[in-house]
Amino acid sequence: MKAIQIIGFDADDTLWVNGQYFKFAEKAFTSLLISYMSKEQLIKELYSTEMKNMKLYGYGAMAFTLSLIETAIRISKGKVSSEIIKEIMDVGTGILRQPVVLLPGVSEVLPELFNNYKLIVVTKGDLLDQERKLENSGLLRYFHHIEVVSEKHESNYSKLIELLGINPEEFLMVGNSLKSDIIPVLSIGGNAVHIPQEEVWIHENSIKPELSFFELTSLFELPELLSGDKVYSV
Amino acid sequence: MKAIQIIGFDADDTLWVNGQYFKFAEKAFTSLLISYMSKEQLIKELYSTEMKNMKLYGYGAMAFTLSLIETAIRISKGKVSSEIIKEIMDVGTGILRQPVVLLPGVSEVLPELFNNYKLIVVTKGDLLDQERKLENSGLLRYFHHIEVVSEKHESNYSKLIELLGINPEEFLMVGNSLKSDIIPVLSIGGNAVHIPQEEVWIHENSIKPELSFFELTSLFELPELLSGDKVYSV
Repeated sequence: MKAIQIIGFDADDTLWVNGQYFKFAEKAFTSLLISYMSKEQLIKELYSTEMKNMKLYGYGAMAFTLSLIETAIRISKGKVSSEIIKEIMDVGTGILRQPVVLLPGVSEVLPELFNNYKLIVVTKGDLLDQERKLENSGLLRYFHHIEVVSEKHESNYSKLIELLGINPEEFLMVGNSLKSDIIPVLSIGGNAVHIPQEEVWIHENSIKPELSFFELTSLFELPELLSGDKVYSV
Repeated sequence: MKAIQIIGFDADDTLWVNGQYFKFAEKAFTSLLISYMSKEQLIKELYSTEMKNMKLYGYGAMAFTLSLIETAIRISKGKVSSEIIKEIMDVGTGILRQPVVLLPGVSEVLPELFNNYKLIVVTKGDLLDQERKLENSGLLRYFHHIEVVSEKHESNYSKLIELLGINPEEFLMVGNSLKSDIIPVLSIGGNAVHIPQEEVWIHENSIKPELSFFELTSLFELPELLSGDKVYSV
């Protein structure tokens, strides 16, 4: 890993807690509608609504909230009251009000890496919400560039690497999602470090990579990996 | 205008129709709730909800839809049925499905300017929706760079101009909003051309600029202005 010049970090569930907030909201949603169907059925219905809306709405809490409301009305056959809809709306949009809680190692490791690498953020989702979280995280000073994309496809990474003026092998992406952070980066000849999180949306880890990458348990292990003393290849 | 090197275009209501779709949705919304209060009162209530949510939700059709639903539940004191809420949701998110209709002069003037200037897009709102519209517009080939921002503040324009490697006096911004496209660009020493549109959200034109700028009735007049043969200064 001696050739690395720029390290890209995913944001949600790599720098800070995110999936947990969606899981809490999902639990509140199922509690509010448990009289209509089981928790498992409700979650299945919600996921199918989200997948249907993905192309039009994209990622983020507002998209999620609209899918919560749509699912509640559909599965209740229009019987759910507007008071419950209001509660569901508050549960969903409440995600936008959650504090930014950094994940283990973030506040220790970024200042260290900042001395030897250009650090950037590559995140998807709602632009305003990502900017708000970066602002509140106190991490902005460490980042040379912030890239918010609607999807993390190979072409997005290729364009970004070109903009940054480096070769793919000089780029390392760090993230929790195999689908978004690892596979597309490996495919274009870059390097990738996977740091799994407990709460992973099934949509994000449905495919396994064919190329080799690194897996760490927390960001604390990244400087050692970069210095080349240990090999953690999966 | 001989020093101009890069021309930035606003997208919604500068390159294509947008405000009209929100106005149609607003009309449908007031028709659905007319039993609760007058059209004027409903629009006032909606605007106050939108302003309250602006900082958290930002711009775009998903933010608008959430504010429509919230307003309907509030003004009906929770009496609105979930069928009506579903209709309101379809009206709001339907904006994301509207065709991209180019404004007069866009398809004629962009190919012409493309030969002599670097053209870019500077737009705010929902990232995915802006990308979708650019893709569907057929205009992507004319643009050197696309910048989607959460707000069009002076600092966003300054950073962009620095990224592009030019001086502010070499930049011209073209747009329909005094607040977002004209005033911040003039304030940092850039040039601006205002092309007013009929449907302007009151939020966008509440302040008048103190510095001088140009006003055109359509994009058809831009090449002549740039060639310096006429002066249209306001």
